Amino acid sequence: MKKKICTLKELALKLNLSISTVSRALNNHPDISNETKLKVVNLANKLNYTPNLFAQGFRKNKTNMIGVILPNVTHYFSATILKGILKQAEVKGYRVFITESNNNVKKQSEMLHTMMQFGVDGILMSISKKTKNIKDILDLLDKIPIVLFDKVSYKIPCTQIVVNEEEASFKAIEHLIHTGKKRIAIIKEDEFSFSSERRFEGYLRALKENAIDIDKNLIISCEDLSLEQGRRMTKLLLGLKNKPDAIFAITDTAAIGVIKTLKKFNIKIPEDIAVIGFSNSLHSTIIEPKLTTVDQPGEKIGKTAIEYLVKEIESSEAYVSSKTIEIKTTLIVRDSSLKTTSFI
Amino acid sequence: MKKKICTLKELALKLNLSISTVSRALNNHPDISNETKLKVVNLANKLNYTPNLFAQGFRKNKTNMIGVILPNVTHYFSATILKGILKQAEVKGYRVFITESNNNVKKQSEMLHTMMQFGVDGILMSISKKTKNIKDILDLLDKIPIVLFDKVSYKIPCTQIVVNEEEASFKAIEHLIHTGKKRIAIIKEDEFSFSSERRFEGYLRALKENAIDIDKNLIISCEDLSLEQGRRMTKLLLGLKNKPDAIFAITDTAAIGVIKTLKKFNIKIPEDIAVIGFSNSLHSTIIEPKLTTVDQPGEKIGKTAIEYLVKEIESSEAYVSSKTIEIKTTLIVRDSSLKTTSFI
Repeated sequence: MKKKICTLKELALKLNLSISTVSRALNNHPDISNETKLKVVNLANKLNYTPNLFAQGFRKNKTNMIGVILPNVTHYFSATILKGILKQAEVKGYRVFITESNNNVKKQSEMLHTMMQFGVDGILMSISKKTKNIKDILDLLDKIPIVLFDKVSYKIPCTQIVVNEEEASFKAIEHLIHTGKKRIAIIKEDEFSFSSERRFEGYLRALKENAIDIDKNLIISCEDLSLEQGRRMTKLLLGLKNKPDAIFAITDTAAIGVIKTLKKFNIKIPEDIAVIGFSNSLHSTIIEPKLTTVDQPGEKIGKTAIEYLVKEIESSEAYVSSKTIEIKTTLIVRDSSLKTTSFI
Repeated sequence: MKKKICTLKELALKLNLSISTVSRALNNHPDISNETKLKVVNLANKLNYTPNLFAQGFRKNKTNMIGVILPNVTHYFSATILKGILKQAEVKGYRVFITESNNNVKKQSEMLHTMMQFGVDGILMSISKKTKNIKDILDLLDKIPIVLFDKVSYKIPCTQIVVNEEEASFKAIEHLIHTGKKRIAIIKEDEFSFSSERRFEGYLRALKENAIDIDKNLIISCEDLSLEQGRRMTKLLLGLKNKPDAIFAITDTAAIGVIKTLKKFNIKIPEDIAVIGFSNSLHSTIIEPKLTTVDQPGEKIGKTAIEYLVKEIESSEAYVSSKTIEIKTTLIVRDSSLKTTSFI
């Protein structure tokens, strides 16, 4: 079944008027008589005519559509950002056209191209992990407003919305130090990633400012920050002669792997080894003990990204902004680092 | 910054040709000389001209856009369906325009209207929980192809993609009976919901076919199937003179509330009370003991929904299909109902 829409052309044919007369009548143009207006409006209502927004948009070179490229929609943090994007886009009068890159760089390029073809007014994107060649993105920068969020790159001169990764990580480590921990391990990513590096910087700064020597054995990197890798890296750390007294995994998922492994070896959390994650995923309160973690306000990131993008879309100036906006996070202290609540 | 796109008009102006000549040259029309074609194509390449798909679409009354309305994008199961939708839409050459109703019926109606205005070719929707008045949806049925998925209603005569709720629940209860359980409680929704009712039917059938009397005290309903409600309902069940020996919560979230409460009261799972959930959420393997649950293949639901919708969009017949497609689920047996794995 093809969709049935009542067009201006149909109205014009049925009324034996020109398309332009019908259009002007619907727009209450002074040149058109009241009698004609009444006839047109009545038929339009009867046939359920709705003005086609895209057709209007193309005449004005504006579609009120925003394209969004995400690496993975099923990732809880991405979904919360998406929620913020959808909400704020609606407030601002824009529709959202979503695609998923699955961290595939080729697909990401194709999507950028398709979005241009579909005439979106601006693009919000979280870049794919393996984006080495940013030429595609750079080429678009003077053609269409682009705002990056979450997974960003400083090599792309446009507005970027991120969380205060370094500061968040700094505070997490300081919290461990304040509870008396001195041998703090970090589990980070082995490949370069913006957030992993910034979180690592916060770790290093916290140790330095608290005069704690850096022990390279306690800095471990892995390919992905999955639960399975969290388990494996914990076994490595437990094999050290001089074991850690705390583990900071830079994702909640890896941190949950850490907790599961420590429990398996009957290591007391947090007394023997404290654990901290990052992102305040839903899992963090399901696991026992509950996980201390950094809350990243996904909805706020999405909302802020839309606001900056719409500002650029609606600005008459041809400038390209390249601000970095840092959204504040909160450290949520739970039983995995400090016993504050009852066990269940 | 407004987006900059090279239009047919610009090409025509720069080449001092008519728009129609430029258009025909780009489409390799026989009436246009090779010399002109070459000139047009060269400039089009130089200026990075891309044909505007929407503009083309409107001429053909086809935009290759599908509108999706979901109650909640951050819900993991919805996100997996969305993944299937995005993947299969791409395969079929359609773009996806997503909105979230937040279970707000008024918003849902506005979204349907907006989608029509934007000229989508078809609509996929999971209806809002409180949709009592389905007139809006019925009105659209002869104007545009609509396929419902997950949260559906038999009162709307269109294709509906659901999981085999009744059968899935029947199998979950039979599994409990086979492990020797006889007093099986169910925690369901108090308001009418398609899935809650179907799951309840499966529960009743399993007891009946196994000659187990129904005890009304073991059938409890609550407003939402949250973790908190799971906790509260468990306390109610534990207050019974004749306690249950198994609890089937019709969502994983509620089932996790059940497990947390049973552990708090030092009740052995599954020996004293077994627990089963529904949906195989990510949490189900984070909680200890791991939760026995029904796996619902979200991606497959999304993929199937797109396939049926595209079939309707591309069909020349004006029929409205009203098939119900049931997607098969799998019972995943874990430690909360039968000790099969080591504790961690």
